[in-house]
Amino acid sequence: MSLNITLSPPYLIYLGNTQDKAIAKTAYGLVEWAPEKCIGQFRTSGCTVDLGLPDLTFDQSIAMGAKSLVLGCAPAGGRLDPSWIAQLLQAIEAGLDIVSGLHTRLRDIPVLLSAAEQNNVRLIDIRIPPKDIPIAKGVKRSGKRLLTVGTDCAIGKKYAALAITKALQQRGVLCDFRATGQTGIMIAGEGMPIDAVISDFVAGAAELVSPASPDDHWDVIEGQGSLFHPAYAGVSLGLLNGSQPDALVLCHDPTRNHIISYKDFPAPDILDCMNRNLAAASLTNPSVRFVGVCVNTSAIEDEDQRRKYLDQLQDMSGLPCVDPLKDGVEAILDELENQ
Amino acid sequence: MSLNITLSPPYLIYLGNTQDKAIAKTAYGLVEWAPEKCIGQFRTSGCTVDLGLPDLTFDQSIAMGAKSLVLGCAPAGGRLDPSWIAQLLQAIEAGLDIVSGLHTRLRDIPVLLSAAEQNNVRLIDIRIPPKDIPIAKGVKRSGKRLLTVGTDCAIGKKYAALAITKALQQRGVLCDFRATGQTGIMIAGEGMPIDAVISDFVAGAAELVSPASPDDHWDVIEGQGSLFHPAYAGVSLGLLNGSQPDALVLCHDPTRNHIISYKDFPAPDILDCMNRNLAAASLTNPSVRFVGVCVNTSAIEDEDQRRKYLDQLQDMSGLPCVDPLKDGVEAILDELENQ
Repeated sequence: MSLNITLSPPYLIYLGNTQDKAIAKTAYGLVEWAPEKCIGQFRTSGCTVDLGLPDLTFDQSIAMGAKSLVLGCAPAGGRLDPSWIAQLLQAIEAGLDIVSGLHTRLRDIPVLLSAAEQNNVRLIDIRIPPKDIPIAKGVKRSGKRLLTVGTDCAIGKKYAALAITKALQQRGVLCDFRATGQTGIMIAGEGMPIDAVISDFVAGAAELVSPASPDDHWDVIEGQGSLFHPAYAGVSLGLLNGSQPDALVLCHDPTRNHIISYKDFPAPDILDCMNRNLAAASLTNPSVRFVGVCVNTSAIEDEDQRRKYLDQLQDMSGLPCVDPLKDGVEAILDELENQ
Repeated sequence: MSLNITLSPPYLIYLGNTQDKAIAKTAYGLVEWAPEKCIGQFRTSGCTVDLGLPDLTFDQSIAMGAKSLVLGCAPAGGRLDPSWIAQLLQAIEAGLDIVSGLHTRLRDIPVLLSAAEQNNVRLIDIRIPPKDIPIAKGVKRSGKRLLTVGTDCAIGKKYAALAITKALQQRGVLCDFRATGQTGIMIAGEGMPIDAVISDFVAGAAELVSPASPDDHWDVIEGQGSLFHPAYAGVSLGLLNGSQPDALVLCHDPTRNHIISYKDFPAPDILDCMNRNLAAASLTNPSVRFVGVCVNTSAIEDEDQRRKYLDQLQDMSGLPCVDPLKDGVEAILDELENQ
């Protein structure tokens, strides 16, 4: 039995009356990265967002195999809109699990809780980690692991991990994306909200995220935070140690002059950041190495300039440097397999 | 208002029928480091442990000013002995707060909870962090801070911090011991159980532990874990970053060949450990420096050998190296003031 959060796909995606694509970011992420899990969308009058999925009622979705209604929209503040509750009750009565990444906990809404109990469905708040996470053992596990790390938060670590997973799968490599954040957990269908775990258990939680696997199997683990973040570095380190990565990929954004929301904290030097991650990671896996850098180059409009920037970074780091959106990650995979 | 846990001294120390000094470790720590907070002990028939404090009834202790009954004994497994409950109820009815560091939560025992509410006293489980801990700001705070760090867990970080605080006070330096663990919190009368805080908030919790203070005031902060611990390094890093230490003291035990309970993890090299701590701490305080090493030399019986070991360490590190129990910490204070 896994101690991770485990969801039941396929999903019906709840959009309610959302009128803003930004609010439906989770839904778009799901459709992009886990289209096979998304069989329909549920929209009410006034909704102007369209994921391109069939509009289904709860009963229709169940007839097509749906097991869960996933809240795909997060209003400002992450609160659950009370006007949704009547529909969520209908979904529960129809037999769907409800999956939410909102701050408001589904289980704290008594009418949902009692309906879920009566109908034997689950209310899954993916911000709440499972109970009984063990202390990290530090014992080497079989299988191979790649972890994405960053010079900052919100710098493409989930995207890079998903892109690498997909490219590895296309090469026929046995691999799994391992989720450590909310959207990632919905995409993977399981995972661990690592930043919500009690600090003593973070490395232990990371060990659960990527369990022992066949020797030729790769877990591609979604990183969190940055070792250079004044608030979250401890989370990043616990995840790094528990993941025991064989390979690291650095994620970077050259326009980020300082840590996001922390103006007094300059973005770290790339090589310094890589060295710090290697030193820390070598505690639980002395043979760890970097295999590439994923860069968000969207701000460099001129293609020659962009190419020049990546080439310089490549010369400096000795590693393939790509923008996964524009260049793909094949060069990183080549480096990964080059050993 | 502090968001730390805050206790109400003076304390009556509950020993019950304890017959083993090891089980009363917390009580002995309190009497050693906070004698001014301990006005008596409460023992029942069969108790063979004696703290050298007056035996008082609950009413007698209250007449002498006691505000809290502190559970000074922790049976194996950290469970509350059900036979204590009748006495705890009497203490609550007499008007004492109950303070516990046990795994069993006082607030989970319904008869204690209702009695506490009726009598307007607090049940304080010091393993449970306060709510509403903010995310770390990373903003420099006034005042000076010293943090004890270690090559391992359970290696003297609390003892070193307490010894340094006491010695600073004797020199007339304004200072406070800042507690981050359970016994430390009882001794200080306030603090933060840092290892029980949700990982995203650890650095923020550390910022609360040592708030802004006068420029010539020192906070001496109890360290936790080790950057070289496969399970707890993230806790250590969050505490390090949130503490923004000006000065670090390394705690070490030369007989510790590997991380305690982790045989595959050799004890780190001392200089490597110091460099890693300096690199990490410089994120939030670039002027951080080490001011000494506290060594547990109890295993080196021959005094010449002991002296030689410390001298060699001193030559290697360029810092005062002392066993706080045998040598005191004056040499470290000299180094601290030498700037």
